[in-house]
Amino acid sequence: MSGTKAQKARACHTIFFKNAPRIIASAAVAGPKECAGIIGNYVDKPLSDDMFGEDTFEKAECKMLSYAIDTAIKNARLSREQVDVIFSGDLLNQIISASFAARDFDIPFLGVYSACSTMSESMLLSAAMIDAGYVKHAVAATGSHFASAERQYRYPLEQGTTRPPQSQWTVTGAGGCVIAAEGEGPRIVNGTMGKVVDFGVTDVNNMGAAMAPACADTLIRHFRDTQTDADDYDLILTGDLGALGSRILKDLTWEKGFDISEKHVDCGEIIYKVIEDEFQGGSGAGCSATVFNSYILAKMRAREYRCVLFAATGALLSTVSSGQGESIPCISHAVQLEV
Amino acid sequence: MSGTKAQKARACHTIFFKNAPRIIASAAVAGPKECAGIIGNYVDKPLSDDMFGEDTFEKAECKMLSYAIDTAIKNARLSREQVDVIFSGDLLNQIISASFAARDFDIPFLGVYSACSTMSESMLLSAAMIDAGYVKHAVAATGSHFASAERQYRYPLEQGTTRPPQSQWTVTGAGGCVIAAEGEGPRIVNGTMGKVVDFGVTDVNNMGAAMAPACADTLIRHFRDTQTDADDYDLILTGDLGALGSRILKDLTWEKGFDISEKHVDCGEIIYKVIEDEFQGGSGAGCSATVFNSYILAKMRAREYRCVLFAATGALLSTVSSGQGESIPCISHAVQLEV
Repeated sequence: MSGTKAQKARACHTIFFKNAPRIIASAAVAGPKECAGIIGNYVDKPLSDDMFGEDTFEKAECKMLSYAIDTAIKNARLSREQVDVIFSGDLLNQIISASFAARDFDIPFLGVYSACSTMSESMLLSAAMIDAGYVKHAVAATGSHFASAERQYRYPLEQGTTRPPQSQWTVTGAGGCVIAAEGEGPRIVNGTMGKVVDFGVTDVNNMGAAMAPACADTLIRHFRDTQTDADDYDLILTGDLGALGSRILKDLTWEKGFDISEKHVDCGEIIYKVIEDEFQGGSGAGCSATVFNSYILAKMRAREYRCVLFAATGALLSTVSSGQGESIPCISHAVQLEV
Repeated sequence: MSGTKAQKARACHTIFFKNAPRIIASAAVAGPKECAGIIGNYVDKPLSDDMFGEDTFEKAECKMLSYAIDTAIKNARLSREQVDVIFSGDLLNQIISASFAARDFDIPFLGVYSACSTMSESMLLSAAMIDAGYVKHAVAATGSHFASAERQYRYPLEQGTTRPPQSQWTVTGAGGCVIAAEGEGPRIVNGTMGKVVDFGVTDVNNMGAAMAPACADTLIRHFRDTQTDADDYDLILTGDLGALGSRILKDLTWEKGFDISEKHVDCGEIIYKVIEDEFQGGSGAGCSATVFNSYILAKMRAREYRCVLFAATGALLSTVSSGQGESIPCISHAVQLEV
């Protein structure tokens, strides 16, 4: 945090990176349903089979994450020895996708968890470690798989349960990026740490509504900490609020005096070509990870977007917490990127 | 990482903190079984009932963690507004104890997960954020509960399953500390990031044997990065290897030329007064969290220990990974403390 006047007046939870680390490379891999949409031409590996040659959904998820990390390192033209740390986490219990993926690499691993906000949390921490000079190259990565998420959080697919109209579709895919002190690529200029916000939503099929207040809280604190508003950004990118959650986010920020409607895009809302059985759109840690690390970064490299505020959004529930009658606490970490 | 000669020769994964952040306060709470042992006189709140007034084990675990965070902040004579970030995680699926505890505080929350190595990972990241000047006060905290861990990882207690002799007993307790740029207390002088190490152990009742190789890897890299050996420390404290795991650790480090036998103490080995049905000793994220944040820090403040290397140890399995035939990848993050 900088010692600005803003901070003296009230708490500032945005970290300003003086050396503005760069995203020097990225990689993404996604399933066939995902690759039929906007990211299809931008991912490193479009899968024709969402099992990715593995015999379980969980192993397929882990393999995608491992592939994204490995390919991002290769795309950065680095050897594995040159990477100092991997920040990663995922939705599976005990973040096994990230832990088992990290087993494939002889690189220090700092496991993180903020559900579907893991991509931006990992980027924020990677940028902090590099900006401070502790490390030279860090990988931030995450992913998810529709089938492993469904059977862990909801029902096994074999059961054929009907999905309600406010539900979203967990993205099958993984994405990651290499963040470095030197090189070419978009800069991470600051990061706003999320707070846990719980508006009392208990419907586990309505994550967008649960997450929107946490996202609004982070965006508004970011605008205040950085003394900016929506007009200062080419794009305000959220993770996986979906169509309904996005509408709620716009309302909540508008109520606080910020009109983001012209600049806001939600990864969950744009990832699928036709929203049919995905209802409100995509979700899962892999949603923003694949969209950001393929389509969005390509647009930034092409200078179509010059200043992007990326706020992935996470719902911090478990089946146990919901089963015990708890509501859904949510969080959103944000990073600001510039070319 | 410093630009020392050691780094040029080979990768250095120890972060040296030039400003050496201080642990200005701590707090711990633990169950009746735990408080009958060595930590009983040192915890802030010894519980007479391991439900802590809640109606589920999970809610009791969350309440302990929330209590530890709140009490650590109070012990530091800080207001909640003065704390910039909480680093926390726990063993429950989707780290619900940490997420729901963080809901009680209007403080940014960065969720982490490295199983029972979460205490030292949180301390390492807290120290990094403070040393870099990003934040002034950070809380690092974690906890666990015997009954919630048993029913999530193994069997419900009601089933009365016999425990094998190589098993450990998950500690019911939580601990946390406030790390600050200024103030009085032990300094965190550096931190060594763990790597995922998997020696192929598949017995989920033998965590000590699974974790020892990861711990040995971190200790040896720490010794090499800092150009120290066991003689330079008053205490080399591991998290929850238990009696068997500790013996394996001593063998593995001895094979690499480091004799830690005179300096090594394992929190799991010392926490219980009499090791009976706990067999190899204590385990769980709360094991090192309670021992370190009560007994060990008290001894450091009394100058009985002046230089401590603290390496909590985590097993990164889930019931799904074990059920799918996977072995147990493990990790250990270390921090070096001095008074």
